[in-house]
Formats: sequence, structure tokens, C-alpha cells
Amino acid sequence: MELDPKTDLRLTRTLAVPRRLVWECWTRPEHIPHFFVPRPHKVTAVDIDLRVGGRFNTRFEVEGNTMDNHGVYLEVVPEEKLVFTDAYTEGWKPAPDPFMTALLLLSDTADGGTSYTAIARHRSPEARQTHEDMGFHDGWGTVVTQLEVYAKGLMT
Amino acid sequence: MELDPKTDLRLTRTLAVPRRLVWECWTRPEHIPHFFVPRPHKVTAVDIDLRVGGRFNTRFEVEGNTMDNHGVYLEVVPEEKLVFTDAYTEGWKPAPDPFMTALLLLSDTADGGTSYTAIARHRSPEARQTHEDMGFHDGWGTVVTQLEVYAKGLMT
Repeated sequence: MELDPKTDLRLTRTLAVPRRLVWECWTRPEHIPHFFVPRPHKVTAVDIDLRVGGRFNTRFEVEGNTMDNHGVYLEVVPEEKLVFTDAYTEGWKPAPDPFMTALLLLSDTADGGTSYTAIARHRSPEARQTHEDMGFHDGWGTVVTQLEVYAKGLMT
Repeated sequence: MELDPKTDLRLTRTLAVPRRLVWECWTRPEHIPHFFVPRPHKVTAVDIDLRVGGRFNTRFEVEGNTMDNHGVYLEVVPEEKLVFTDAYTEGWKPAPDPFMTALLLLSDTADGGTSYTAIARHRSPEARQTHEDMGFHDGWGTVVTQLEVYAKGLMT
């Protein structure tokens, strides 16, 4: 996947869990609260309709504040590629001021693990910089660490 | 399809051509120049990759000026629903300042024709108003009239 360094941020990681489980964690509502935001922040609601144009809505609690995030899936290639954004809500309603489009890319490693790439794409270099300053690398890094720990618990 | 009168514009028409042909006209590059912009404006190039996330790029000549429009398909349901936008270019790269998302909805009429609905969705009431002031209803109306005439010529 081609990266535009002006507007994109990327995190790559190798996970010691099979791709199938990583996909399952990212696409089933019961799994999302276990990794999706860095602790001690909490996911309190998840609403998923896993299809192109279907909703991916989440609610967080961050320092006592409730944040609702409404978005849709743009592309769903099982166990390989998941693309979602806050640029639309369900029914292709454009959001007034979208923040980003996220691409999650999964492939197998030789030893049965997962090569994990997460890309955040932005409308402008300024939006990319804002996201980096908000702590993209730490935040998304923590999320994938939480995901790996949680997914390992599902392997038994 | 639910309409938001604050941000959406809609044109509906009944066409005396079968749905299959209307779909073909909208999705094959050789047909697009015959109807896609109101005459005397001209389409001079079309590049289509008809899949979710695939490109829908067109070039117009409008009063001596060349205009390039780059977009992607968001949803492709053959002969029923086509959704495209300038909010992304191919590869899910967000556009800095998208104008609209277009939905084309087709269904059969009792007499073998097509019920045709085109919806333009915008990020704000201001963008909707700009589009209306640019002549949405006349422009999109002319396009569908040109489409019907051209598609009738393909029925022999």
C-alpha cells in the first residue's frame, strides 16, 4: 500500500497471533471493547454492520467525557483488508468535518503470526500533523499491544 | 432512500429504456461522453474501474477550459445502485475539499422502463445551496434527457 508521507501515518507490527483472530477481534462487537482504545479509556458501546457502507459506531469514555464516533466501512476483504472512516455515516451521508480514513492490512508471517499494518489517511498535512501531535504512534501502538494480548487469550 | 432536505438534492425521472441499458450507459467508458455533461460541454476522457474503491475519473471541456474530476465508486450493485464521490481518489486517499457524493438508484417500471433517482449529498447546507445555485436541477435534468435519447439508440 503506497504511503503519502504528507498526509498519512502508519504503524506496522508483527503479532504472534493468527490473522484469522486479528480479523475477528477487529470486526466483532464483543471483542472491540477489549483493545480498541488505550486504557484507562473505555469503549462503552459498539454497533457494527460489517459490509461496504455499513456502520461502525463506537462510544468511548475518556476522562469522564462520552465521545460518540460514527463511521462506515469503505472496504471489507475478510482477513486481509478493512477500511473505515468518519467521513460518512450510514447511508452515505457525508460528515461535515471528517478526521480520517483508516486502513488495516493483514498478512501471514512465516511462523503463523500476523503482519499488521494500520494506516491513517488525512485530508491535509495539517490534519496529519494534528493526529501525530495527539499521539498517533503511542495510541495506535497501545491499541495493537492490547489487541495482541487479548487475542492470545482467545487462542486456547 | 431517505433524503435530508438540508444537505441533499434529488432528481427523479421515468425513462422509456430498460434498467439494464441505463446501468450500462453509466458504467461503461464508451457511453459516458454521450450524456454525462450538458451539451455543448464535452467529456474528453473517461477512466473507469468499476468496483468499490475503483476510480471514476472524467475530463470535461467547459467553455475552453479543461476540468479534471477524480473520484471513486463507494458502492456498486449492478443495475440497481451506483454510489460515487470526489471525496476520495483511488486507494482511499481523502480529497482535501470534496464537493459531493452521488447516488444513482434504478428500478423497473411496470411497462419495462426505468424509474431513475439521482441524489447528490453534500457535507453542509451551504454546499447543497451552492450546487442548487450552479443549476443542479437543469444540469442533472439535461444529463438524464441526453441519457434517455442515447440509450434509446442502443435498443435496436
